[in-house]
Amino acid sequence: MPTSAELVSMARCFSELKNRSDLLSPNVDAGWLYYQSLPEIEGLLNNIIDTAADVRAKCDIFIVVGIGGSHTGCKAVIDALSPHLGGPIANRGPKIVYAGQNLSAEYLSEVLEILKNSNVCINIVSKSGSTVETDVAARLLITAMKAKYGDEAADRIYVTTDDDSSLYRASRQNGWKLFTMPRGIGGRYSVFTPAGLFPIAVAGIDIREFIEGARTGEKLYGNGCTKNPALLYAAARNHLDKNGKDVELFAVYEPRHRGIATWWVQLFGESCGKDGVGLFPADVNYTGDLHSVGQFVQEGRRSLFETVLWCGEDCDLKAPAFESAYGVAGAADELAGVRVADICRAAYLGTMLAHTEGGVPCIGIELLENSAKSIGELLYFFMVAVSYSALAQGLNPFDQPGVEAYKKNMRRIIADKD
Amino acid sequence: MPTSAELVSMARCFSELKNRSDLLSPNVDAGWLYYQSLPEIEGLLNNIIDTAADVRAKCDIFIVVGIGGSHTGCKAVIDALSPHLGGPIANRGPKIVYAGQNLSAEYLSEVLEILKNSNVCINIVSKSGSTVETDVAARLLITAMKAKYGDEAADRIYVTTDDDSSLYRASRQNGWKLFTMPRGIGGRYSVFTPAGLFPIAVAGIDIREFIEGARTGEKLYGNGCTKNPALLYAAARNHLDKNGKDVELFAVYEPRHRGIATWWVQLFGESCGKDGVGLFPADVNYTGDLHSVGQFVQEGRRSLFETVLWCGEDCDLKAPAFESAYGVAGAADELAGVRVADICRAAYLGTMLAHTEGGVPCIGIELLENSAKSIGELLYFFMVAVSYSALAQGLNPFDQPGVEAYKKNMRRIIADKD
Repeated sequence: MPTSAELVSMARCFSELKNRSDLLSPNVDAGWLYYQSLPEIEGLLNNIIDTAADVRAKCDIFIVVGIGGSHTGCKAVIDALSPHLGGPIANRGPKIVYAGQNLSAEYLSEVLEILKNSNVCINIVSKSGSTVETDVAARLLITAMKAKYGDEAADRIYVTTDDDSSLYRASRQNGWKLFTMPRGIGGRYSVFTPAGLFPIAVAGIDIREFIEGARTGEKLYGNGCTKNPALLYAAARNHLDKNGKDVELFAVYEPRHRGIATWWVQLFGESCGKDGVGLFPADVNYTGDLHSVGQFVQEGRRSLFETVLWCGEDCDLKAPAFESAYGVAGAADELAGVRVADICRAAYLGTMLAHTEGGVPCIGIELLENSAKSIGELLYFFMVAVSYSALAQGLNPFDQPGVEAYKKNMRRIIADKD
Repeated sequence: MPTSAELVSMARCFSELKNRSDLLSPNVDAGWLYYQSLPEIEGLLNNIIDTAADVRAKCDIFIVVGIGGSHTGCKAVIDALSPHLGGPIANRGPKIVYAGQNLSAEYLSEVLEILKNSNVCINIVSKSGSTVETDVAARLLITAMKAKYGDEAADRIYVTTDDDSSLYRASRQNGWKLFTMPRGIGGRYSVFTPAGLFPIAVAGIDIREFIEGARTGEKLYGNGCTKNPALLYAAARNHLDKNGKDVELFAVYEPRHRGIATWWVQLFGESCGKDGVGLFPADVNYTGDLHSVGQFVQEGRRSLFETVLWCGEDCDLKAPAFESAYGVAGAADELAGVRVADICRAAYLGTMLAHTEGGVPCIGIELLENSAKSIGELLYFFMVAVSYSALAQGLNPFDQPGVEAYKKNMRRIIADKD
């Protein structure tokens, strides 16, 4: 556990952050990060909701073209609030397909095939407009949209970008519907901007509730009180970092929260992994991964601690008795008639205990419900906590200078080919 | 790089492994691991292939119920060789749905809904038959199958288990088709047994080719020569482990290889993560994750090295020119007309270079083609390499004693509830 001195020092980060105009870009300097302006986004929300309704009426497949924060943020929220298997359960909107998040030619060929055979709208999400993965996918999909829909294509292409990108100019020129990204907000912090909100709304999720969750988070976590849970979490992870832990394992139990784990990895990895320091952020999906990395967590190198996201399910499905299912007598049957949700909670509690006893400290975060509002509050919690955590280590939580290195090499190699 | 002494010591592990009857269970002691008996499985292959053909003719949805190695092995191979999006591309068999790999009541409810509305067969894969996750899912699905199909249900339930499990006895009693697991083979080493082979065959993959790949692997990697690539890989990772690295990051570029990364995490985590030692096994999906953990890899704590799986794509899809796609003039356009597969290869090479220069050693593994045969060889390579790696550290590669700890707590908590 962090010491009181560590907590006070962490609390100081809050006031410090408010005054770090070097970290905050000009148009977010009105308050603490851009979240302060949440009450001002009413007009934007109306615009997004109306446009999303239009898209939902217009298409069966909605292709979101983005990578990094322009992919993981909306995907985390959409996955958390959609059916697991997209099966015969009521579908609340067009099917969401992602592109631009990899450089697989065969993956892109399949997306193009879907585009050809379905009723499609696309959303290109790229701050700079020049990210290679997104750019390649956008060029292919726009070309295919024009070939399929002719002039009508312009009514089916939506763009979310900075107001000084070439993609912005192209959108104005072609009459594509534009959402402008607030400047100075990195991809991993962009889920409450149109980059996240528009696809989330198209998927049929109530973005007013989602924003309401962020507002709740602002009250609970955006302050310098030493009892602020976001500050406690930041202090705990920094304490463990200083005391011999190298890896923070983010565990989720709900399969639909897998995308939140992926988003968390980016948020924490990019914000705190620089200047040769940082906890390596890894994610696991329990209970499945208790049967894979579980052995390592229990008995491998003692370099880990766990941050565990728990959300109980409100579902009465019960395990049938052994004998009635298998038709033979079994041994003592402790599972008969027990709710699957309760078996899962027993696994969660039992695992926390086993890992703690095995020398792996566990930080538990419990969601009271799996709703747009609670997910909004949760994501806000992590964004605030990681900012505290980075600042307390003397790091800028908002830059990611190391991401450029491979891109420079890639461009040089492509240019050499010609 | 490992020293010659390290290589020679690693080579010694090969002969040592042959004589470790304490590690090898009675019915695999005929040779080195059970793979030696590969030529003897002709009869089994015919049985599996005929049964799979029957299933493929009989159903639209095939539910595979398993967790850990009974889930990740077949999923790795099926995903690697299937379309990414399961879309309008030719479907070679029933859709595969997984259950029993989590304890989500809502996930299971959705699977039950699918069962109710589709033409279904199921395969329960559990060595002991008593793994809670698999057991709960199996009880629910068997009950639903009986309710839906009555007596005909028996012809649609397939079981893969040890010959002394209660599940085995239940299968005999009910007339469910049985595949027996060879004893003494842990889940993570079971992909070449019916646990992996049967679902893989149902998915329409040529398991003769897959086994042929393993046979090739046996010739190339199952020997004590110091130039054996599996031995070199094992020596390199042990060397890095001894020299300050804590985390091995397994990176794949092909989205369809994501399941191989998940399988690799279990294989390496369970085989080498014990007795308080081991490299933490993490996986990333590039290029997407270059926009999330890429920052950490490039500039965070210098505790990582990477093992990178590359497989070039044979696909001629090219990036259209900027101007033709966006309808406005752009800056210098180095991507115009370049194959997406070549852009991806430039990213792979550029990333290797950037990470190596950033202090992250990279081990590259290149697949010449994405086929059943090459995937079989690859999985064999890793199973052999991890055995060398563990033995050289004085660890038993085949046990996983730490997996029981959470299960004991879970059972106690469930029992306390009653």
